[in-house]
This record gives sequence, C-alpha cells and structure tokens, in this order.
Amino acid sequence: MITAVFPGSFDPVTRGHLDMIQRASRLVDRLIVAVMVNTSKQPLFSMADKVAMISAEVQDLPNVEVQAATGLTVDFMAKMHATVLVRGLRNEQDFGYERDIAWMNKSLNDQIETICLIARPPYAYFSSSLIKEVAKMGADVSKYVPDAVAQLLQTRLRERANE
Amino acid sequence: MITAVFPGSFDPVTRGHLDMIQRASRLVDRLIVAVMVNTSKQPLFSMADKVAMISAEVQDLPNVEVQAATGLTVDFMAKMHATVLVRGLRNEQDFGYERDIAWMNKSLNDQIETICLIARPPYAYFSSSLIKEVAKMGADVSKYVPDAVAQLLQTRLRERANE
Amino acid sequence: MITAVFPGSFDPVTRGHLDMIQRASRLVDRLIVAVMVNTSKQPLFSMADKVAMISAEVQDLPNVEVQAATGLTVDFMAKMHATVLVRGLRNEQDFGYERDIAWMNKSLNDQIETICLIARPPYAYFSSSLIKEVAKMGADVSKYVPDAVAQLLQTRLRERANE
Amino acid sequence: MITAVFPGSFDPVTRGHLDMIQRASRLVDRLIVAVMVNTSKQPLFSMADKVAMISAEVQDLPNVEVQAATGLTVDFMAKMHATVLVRGLRNEQDFGYERDIAWMNKSLNDQIETICLIARPPYAYFSSSLIKEVAKMGADVSKYVPDAVAQLLQTRLRERANE
Amino acid sequence: MITAVFPGSFDPVTRGHLDMIQRASRLVDRLIVAVMVNTSKQPLFSMADKVAMISAEVQDLPNVEVQAATGLTVDFMAKMHATVLVRGLRNEQDFGYERDIAWMNKSLNDQIETICLIARPPYAYFSSSLIKEVAKMGADVSKYVPDAVAQLLQTRLRERANE
Amino acid sequence: MITAVFPGSFDPVTRGHLDMIQRASRLVDRLIVAVMVNTSKQPLFSMADKVAMISAEVQDLPNVEVQAATGLTVDFMAKMHATVLVRGLRNEQDFGYERDIAWMNKSLNDQIETICLIARPPYAYFSSSLIKEVAKMGADVSKYVPDAVAQLLQTRLRERANE
Repeated sequence: MITAVFPGSFDPVTRGHLDMIQRASRLVDRLIVAVMVNTSKQPLFSMADKVAMISAEVQDLPNVEVQAATGLTVDFMAKMHATVLVRGLRNEQDFGYERDIAWMNKSLNDQIETICLIARPPYAYFSSSLIKEVAKMGADVSKYVPDAVAQLLQTRLRERANE
Repeated sequence: MITAVFPGSFDPVTRGHLDMIQRASRLVDRLIVAVMVNTSKQPLFSMADKVAMISAEVQDLPNVEVQAATGLTVDFMAKMHATVLVRGLRNEQDFGYERDIAWMNKSLNDQIETICLIARPPYAYFSSSLIKEVAKMGADVSKYVPDAVAQLLQTRLRERANE
Repeated sequence: MITAVFPGSFDPVTRGHLDMIQRASRLVDRLIVAVMVNTSKQPLFSMADKVAMISAEVQDLPNVEVQAATGLTVDFMAKMHATVLVRGLRNEQDFGYERDIAWMNKSLNDQIETICLIARPPYAYFSSSLIKEVAKMGADVSKYVPDAVAQLLQTRLRERANE
Repeated sequence: MITAVFPGSFDPVTRGHLDMIQRASRLVDRLIVAVMVNTSKQPLFSMADKVAMISAEVQDLPNVEVQAATGLTVDFMAKMHATVLVRGLRNEQDFGYERDIAWMNKSLNDQIETICLIARPPYAYFSSSLIKEVAKMGADVSKYVPDAVAQLLQTRLRERANE
Repeated sequence: MITAVFPGSFDPVTRGHLDMIQRASRLVDRLIVAVMVNTSKQPLFSMADKVAMISAEVQDLPNVEVQAATGLTVDFMAKMHATVLVRGLRNEQDFGYERDIAWMNKSLNDQIETICLIARPPYAYFSSSLIKEVAKMGADVSKYVPDAVAQLLQTRLRERANE
Repeated sequence: MITAVFPGSFDPVTRGHLDMIQRASRLVDRLIVAVMVNTSKQPLFSMADKVAMISAEVQDLPNVEVQAATGLTVDFMAKMHATVLVRGLRNEQDFGYERDIAWMNKSLNDQIETICLIARPPYAYFSSSLIKEVAKMGADVSKYVPDAVAQLLQTRLRERANE
C-alpha cells in the first residue's frame, strides 16, 4: 500500500491544486494533503481555515484526507508511513525550486521518493499569490479558485483591510 | 494494480536510466521499460540489442520487464493496460520538452498520467548522446553506463567506424 | 498605416498560428503572413500548398494576406513597406531564440520593430514539428490543426511514406 | 485608433524603460505610461515624483502621456479605452512572469492584447532595483538612468538614509 | 600576480562555498574571500562570526584570506588591487542573476573580470538559505556545512528562537 | 604558470569569440585557442582556414596561440600541460550545455578546471550559426565578424553554392 503526501501552503487552495489532488489520488492508495506552515510568508488564512476549505472540496475523493503539519515534510511523512511526495510543476521556475527540494528531501531521508505531475493548461498559469494580488484589487477570481473559496477570500481580504 | 511504462530510446542505457528504473519500480506494481523507435535519429544499437542490454541490468527487479515498442506511446500503453507514464527530468530543458509531450499525451488519451522523477546528481549531468560523443573520442565511459554496456559500446563504435 | 509581417515556416499551419494571426490582425492595419523558406529543414509541404492552406483559413480576416517569401525577413519587409515583425512566444526556449533574432533584425535594419505575442494555453504546448511526429504515428491531430489541414497532412504523410 | 498602456512601478524610470517607451510610441496612436502602485514593495519615490520624472523625459514624444494608476491594470485600461498592454522582456525570468500576467489579464478581460518588446542590449542587463542597490553604495548610475533621475536618486537616497 | 575576490554573504558558509574556494585558489595567486554586507536580508550570523567560521575552514589554503567588506564589490576590489571576481553558478537562475551583476560590475569598472565556476553535484543543489530553513525545523545539516558550522548554526538558531 | 585552452569550432570566428579571447588572455600565462573538429556538423571552413583566420586576429596578443585539435578536449589539454578550460556563456541555454560538459570533463580528468566568462552585450546575442544563416541570405555581417572574415565568408558561401 502506497501512502503519498501532497504538501503546500494552500493560501488559498486553487483549482490548479485541486486538479493535482484529483490526478494524484488515482496513483496511490492514500493521499494526504498536508497544509504546511510557511515560515517565510505571513499567510492570509489560518491553518484550520485552510484544512476546512480543502476538505470541503475533496470530499468526493475517498482516499484523500487533509491534515495540518509542521516541521520537516520528511518527518511528517515518516510519521504518516508515507513514502511518496507529490509535487506539481507549472513552469521552469517551479522545476528549479523542486529539483533542489527533492534532492534535499532524498538526502534527509532516502526512503522518500518525489513524483512530479505537470500542471495542465490553464492551471500552469496562476498561483495562490497571483490570485490574492488580483483579488485584492477587486477582480472576480472564481475562475481560479472554487466558488466557496472565492467568497471566503473576499471576506478575508475585507477583514484584513480593516485590521 | 498500476502498470507503468518508462519509454526511451536507450541508445545505450545509462546508469542514470537504471537509477530511474529502480526508483520507479518501487512506485508501481508493474513497470515496462519500453524501447521506442526514435524516427529522427539513426540509432547506434538495434532494438534487440537494446532490449537485451537493459534486460541484463534489471533482472534483479522482479516487477520490471523490457519490451520493444513502435508507434505512439499512448497506443502502446493502452495495449499494455498501462495508465502511468514515467519520465525523468534532469534539467530545465528536459522539463520544457516533457511538459509539451505530457500535455500532448493527455490530450490524445485522457486516461494517461505522466509522473516525472527528478534525476539525482550526478545522473542529471549526462545523457546517452554525450556518452557516445566522448566514447567515440576514446574516453572510458564505465562511470556513466554499466560495465557490460561500456564494452558493447566500444565494440559497436569500432564496427561503426569500419562500416 | 502600419503593415506587419508574421513570418514562419508553417509546415503545416496550426490552430496556434491561426490564433496568433487573428490576435495580431487586430493590432495593425495590414498583416502579411509570410511563408518563409526554412533552409535547414526539409519541409513536408510545398510553398504553394502552405500559402493555399493558410489563405483558406484567414479568408474572414479582411486585413490579412498570405505570401511566399525568400531571403532575409528584413529585406522582405522593406519591400512590403512593413515596419512591424510579429512573433509568437510559447515558452522560455522560444524567448531565447526570438531575443537573438529580434536583435539581429534590428541590427540589420533599425526601422524594424519586433512585437511578441504570448501564446495562450493550450496553444503554448504544441508545434508543427510535434504534430507531424504524432500524425506520422497515426494520431488524429484535428485538435491542433484546422480540419482541412489535418486531412491534407494525412494525405501528404501517406504520399511521403511511398516516396 | 489604438491606445496602449505601458504599466510599471518605475522606481525610478531607467534608460531601458525610456527606450521601450520610444519604441512602443511608434507602434500605436496613443501611449499612456501608467505608474502603478506596487503593493508588495515600499517605493523610494512618490507617485507624483515618478509621474514628473517620466513626463520630463518623454516631452518630445507627442503621443505619449504619463498617468498615475491604481487597481487592476485591465480596469485602468478599460477606463482609458486602451486595448493594448505593452511589456518589455529582458530575459527568461521576465518572460516567465509576463506569460502568467498576460494570461491572467486576458482571462480577466478578453479585449486586452499584451504585446512584448524585447529589451535591447545593454538595456536587458539592468533594472530599477539593481540600480538602486548600487546607487545606495555610492555608484554613479547616470549610464543607466537619465541625468536628472540620477541626481534625484542621489538626493532621495540621502533623505532616506536620514529618515 | 593575479588577486581575485570571491564575495558572498556566507550566512553561513557551506561545503559548496568551500569547494568553490578550493577550486578558485588554484587559479590565482591570491584569493580574498570577501564577506559582504547583504543589505536586503537580515543575516543570522555577524560579520565577525562569518569571517571566523570561514577562516577556520581555509587555514590549509596558504593563498586564501578572509575579509569583511562593505560597499560596492568593485570598490573593495580596487582597494585590494584585485582584478578577478570569482562567482559560482549552480543553476540557470544563478546564471541569470550573475549575468546582470557581471555586466554591471564591468560597466562600473572595466578593469574587473568576472570568472564563473560551475558548482559540482551535489553542491549545485543547495544554498545557505535552504540549509537554514531545514536546520530551523530540526534537520541535521552536517552533510551541507562543515561540522563546526553545523554546531554553530544549531546554537545560533536556538539563541534566535529565544530573542 | 597557468596554461589555458579556449576550444571551439569557430566556423567562423566572431567578434564575440575575439572579445572572449582577449579577456581570457589577461587571466592566464598562456592561452591556446583550440580549433576542434565538430563531428556532428559539416563545417563551412577547413581547419587550416580557421586556424589562419583566428591567428590573423590575435597577433597582437603575445600569450595567445592557435592550434588545430582532435579528440577529447581533456586529452588535448593534458598534452599541452593546460589545466584551465575557458568557455563563454551567452545565455541560459549555453549554461545548461556547459554545465554538463564541465562536469563530464572534470569527471574524465580531475585536474581540469573550467572557467566561464559571461559574454558582453551585444556579443551575447549572436553565434557563428546565426551569422552564416543571414550571410547566406545576403546580409552584411561585418558587424559580427572581423572584416577579413566577412570577406572570406562571402567567398566561401559563393563557392559552396557552386559545389
């Protein structure tokens, strides 16, 4: 039985992430979407909000679960008995980043195998960051994130503006 | 049960290919190494030679088999009931090439999922072509290809020079 | 009045090329699609066939015409009183190639300005070469080229196989 | 009549920007240089200063005007009845960034067409950020920015150091 | 006699940096490792700590010395009568960055020549930043930095957590 | 005493190559420009012609000599007691190619160190191949190659057309 982890900061989850999750779920027995703390960026959504948002979107995928995680991805994977790390590649820049991380992870724990799925157009052309940037300026982003997430994003940006 | 195909021209198979095969074999139930006809390049080795060379190297991997294949990879996969296409990524240039091929394959047959494994150093730094180029000029290439292949390569290059 | 040239080898024209032509036609007064001789590759289609194929597809665009051209693009442009050179960018590799060509053209004729349009997904993911490669192996390519071109491609590949 | 917008943060405007503006001004009927608020970076110069600095440099180009703008570029363009978005490409990294932004803008407003001009050497080799970095350490930057801007930059950096 | 400078922020020095220093030391008469102030990032280690850490690792290389430096690299080099600037390239992204910096430096002082050494695998796959990131999460990083540095890093991260 | 080799196919030598040679000649005691046989491409000029063309251009650089060479670059270097291999980098694609070759060379002979010089604008924007392509179509290429080479190129292309 193969358990895989799809880690990310998901701030917020996009339609691109969900396509990756669906595709990855068919490749393994159990897929854990791991909402990781990103220490270098101040997130817009709390861990609990992110877990709830993703969980709502993956409820039709029986072998997918969502968990909050801290620390090294390889340590979280060892705890979960997961051996496969799933990453999405949108472009050359992603590849450069993931190549280094994949090597680092293998060097920290040789049992871990990283598999990369290549994003499909048009999912290759946007990111959570870009979506937040245009949403902040008033764009309707429901093409890029699930409808429920688009609403939560609007609410959260309004709150943030008032903080 | 997941059957995967690792296609390539393997002219000849390298230690980098073999590392990919070993890593991929742990992810799926059955892995078929498919020696594909590359119509655009005149190969150094015959299909039969390539199948034999790889088979000799993977005999300790019980779920790996080697086959010659022609035509579209997705058609070969359908015939083999394979749903996963395995590709190795060494660098940005590989990524650019594989992104287009992966999309084309998915567009030709939506049941196919391409997973990419990132080559480990130093396997990311050489290719069959580079090895043939230096072997032609007299370099010892046994660091880059299995010992048996290095010998066959030397023999074949001598034959070719006399053709 | 601005006259622009969109040069290429169009062997054959793809849906991606046609999207570029349509988009470019809105930016200038007159757009000349220039079918250039590509000296380094043996084309599948004749110049006359290419001009006919593209002409059939652009007949609804009143300011677009199709011409065969030889020699330097900048010389053809001078003869046509064209000042704008239109190029499509699909990916980083295209950019690297076009950057050098654009500088060379400007250095040969400072009156020439190159404008690049970025290919839309999924048009960014395929090329005439890739389409020919999969068509040769029996794939239906009508998603990537106009229907009439797909038929001509099939016919031409059958002829070529018998040559 | 085609109205184009050349947006940027221009903090400060460089000789590279001005070359782009001049080249773009020959392609369209009216060119609006839009000084955009960059929410993610603390600018060195105020919007008013930037508008003034650029205006002084483009006064010989009759079809160019300079405006401050906030919000989405596509919304500003709609307000200005502009249909063409002009962007400069210096290198592969620029291309990767602009590809995503161009797709996002087209997806937000299909009437918008992005055209990219490729920076000429040596304008491809520097940016406002790099210029500020070396200016801060005492370099004479009048090769990279107009003379007036070089002086204002020196003054502003001295003020900033005392803030 | 050729004096070269190998500048960096070395926060902290890695085994990759040390390989570069050793390789560069064989090419020139005198090599100055210059610990530069990086104004855009808050360093983990003080200048004095960095100089001490590197000095301890290079004591067997008689023509290498370590110095703290501020201001423009080209100004520091002029003061040191150094004409060669040594930089390491790990990947395409490094190249893009170094190309611009090398041109800027040559443009500021034409006497300066930048030579780039290409990082060897696996040194091409990690950076000080990535090492700090995983060390913060508890990873043993002695594979990537010298043993003494790994200990100092652990101590410093503990201090930082308590600040 | 450091002897360096600057290998290439130089078909023909360009102003970009000559800039590299001049810059490299200041870094080492002795610089050998090695005209290598490129087995994969049919050259336009003979080895003797290339050696003569380059020799004429470097006669003012006392520590530079030009030699024809065959076989592996590292074997030629060993024979010449050369330890430094000089390569020019124009762009990301060059980097990707040189990274692999540099590693291969170091792996074949650990005594060899490759140093890369980054091409200056506008030398980064053209190659021997591009120059031959436009010269074939009638362009004046004396901006890109020395005057004597431009004349020889014209003569040689006329001969070739008649062959």
